Amino acid sequence: MYEIYETKERITADNDKEAAKNRANLKEKKVFLVNLMASPGAGKTTTLVRTIKAIKDDYRVAVMEADVDSDVDAETVHQLGVKVIQLHTGGLCHMDADMTQRALAKMGIDDVDVVFLENIGNLVCPAEFDVGAAKKVMILSVPEGDDKPLKYPLMFQVSDLLLINKIDTKAIFDFDEERCAQYVHQLNPDMKIIPLSARTGEGFEEWIAWLRAAIEEWRND
Amino acid sequence: MYEIYETKERITADNDKEAAKNRANLKEKKVFLVNLMASPGAGKTTTLVRTIKAIKDDYRVAVMEADVDSDVDAETVHQLGVKVIQLHTGGLCHMDADMTQRALAKMGIDDVDVVFLENIGNLVCPAEFDVGAAKKVMILSVPEGDDKPLKYPLMFQVSDLLLINKIDTKAIFDFDEERCAQYVHQLNPDMKIIPLSARTGEGFEEWIAWLRAAIEEWRND
Repeated sequence: MYEIYETKERITADNDKEAAKNRANLKEKKVFLVNLMASPGAGKTTTLVRTIKAIKDDYRVAVMEADVDSDVDAETVHQLGVKVIQLHTGGLCHMDADMTQRALAKMGIDDVDVVFLENIGNLVCPAEFDVGAAKKVMILSVPEGDDKPLKYPLMFQVSDLLLINKIDTKAIFDFDEERCAQYVHQLNPDMKIIPLSARTGEGFEEWIAWLRAAIEEWRND
Repeated sequence: MYEIYETKERITADNDKEAAKNRANLKEKKVFLVNLMASPGAGKTTTLVRTIKAIKDDYRVAVMEADVDSDVDAETVHQLGVKVIQLHTGGLCHMDADMTQRALAKMGIDDVDVVFLENIGNLVCPAEFDVGAAKKVMILSVPEGDDKPLKYPLMFQVSDLLLINKIDTKAIFDFDEERCAQYVHQLNPDMKIIPLSARTGEGFEEWIAWLRAAIEEWRND
């Protein structure tokens, strides 16, 4: 038992150093990396597909699909004509900085402007590992419930932006946006929240505007 | 990196021994432990509440609520008048056999027949740790999508029963029950699947019948 904790701490300390290296390297090359995190089935891939369609004429986009197994999402994204690499974590529940570094090297980033890392569907472990992204974006979907910030606080604390997906199903589920925002802001007072629907496109204008501004800031800073 | 894997394996080996001990002890005391696993927001607590109401006149029920943080679910369950203990894993993404053993001892099981362990909302890590339960029950909810067996195979491999929750929202989401069942049975040919809705009560008759039969088999075997 204790050994798990110790190993974890050591790895996390190393991880932060590796993450900082990744971030510096990406900054130098003006590549904007987004660490996209969510529960299983929150709509990471669907959100990604619509997002790529919205920006791919202006930026050279690449996607790193992290999965415990399967290539389902890589296939979906590949059809958009963007660069994509499928990462299999071999059972591991998150991506860390070292894995991300190796994945970026393997994929190659000399010909890309924006990289989306679709992390493993998990609200717990990915929150603990900085991968060196420019921005951490998390998706919470309406059917999961508005109390999730109480139950998975770290994810909400470390993220830069919260997308509330499947907002078109709000009427069906007992999801109180205001209550959710209160929980979120108790943990992360500056967290920007954008409700959207990857299915209908509602809210995407605001999300894409946020993303474009973040990319430009990263490149010009 | 490599150290993580090694440590994990060693711990898992120890974990299996501890899990076997738990199972033998529970068997001797005729206490039926259910390890209930699902994604965040799949409806574990809502399903549990309706389940407890259905069986609490016949069995002395207790609940162990595992959370990274917060007592939300324990409060909800406590209102049903059953024994409940809140477990905080302190950031850990799953319950293991040792933690379960200590939690059972702390709560006391001399006055209970059935214990539900509501595991951390996570489809990856809890699947790797046998806690010594009589049955592993997993919940997949319709909004998560029918492709989840492809993406989180281990959870579907190790579980004894799959409850497909929020089945009342099937028409809204593109959820194909037949396709989901095919994916599941490729991983776990004997897996029993019961679609239900913890909100409307649809499907509960079948689930409660399965549960009662499993409890009786455990006690009389």
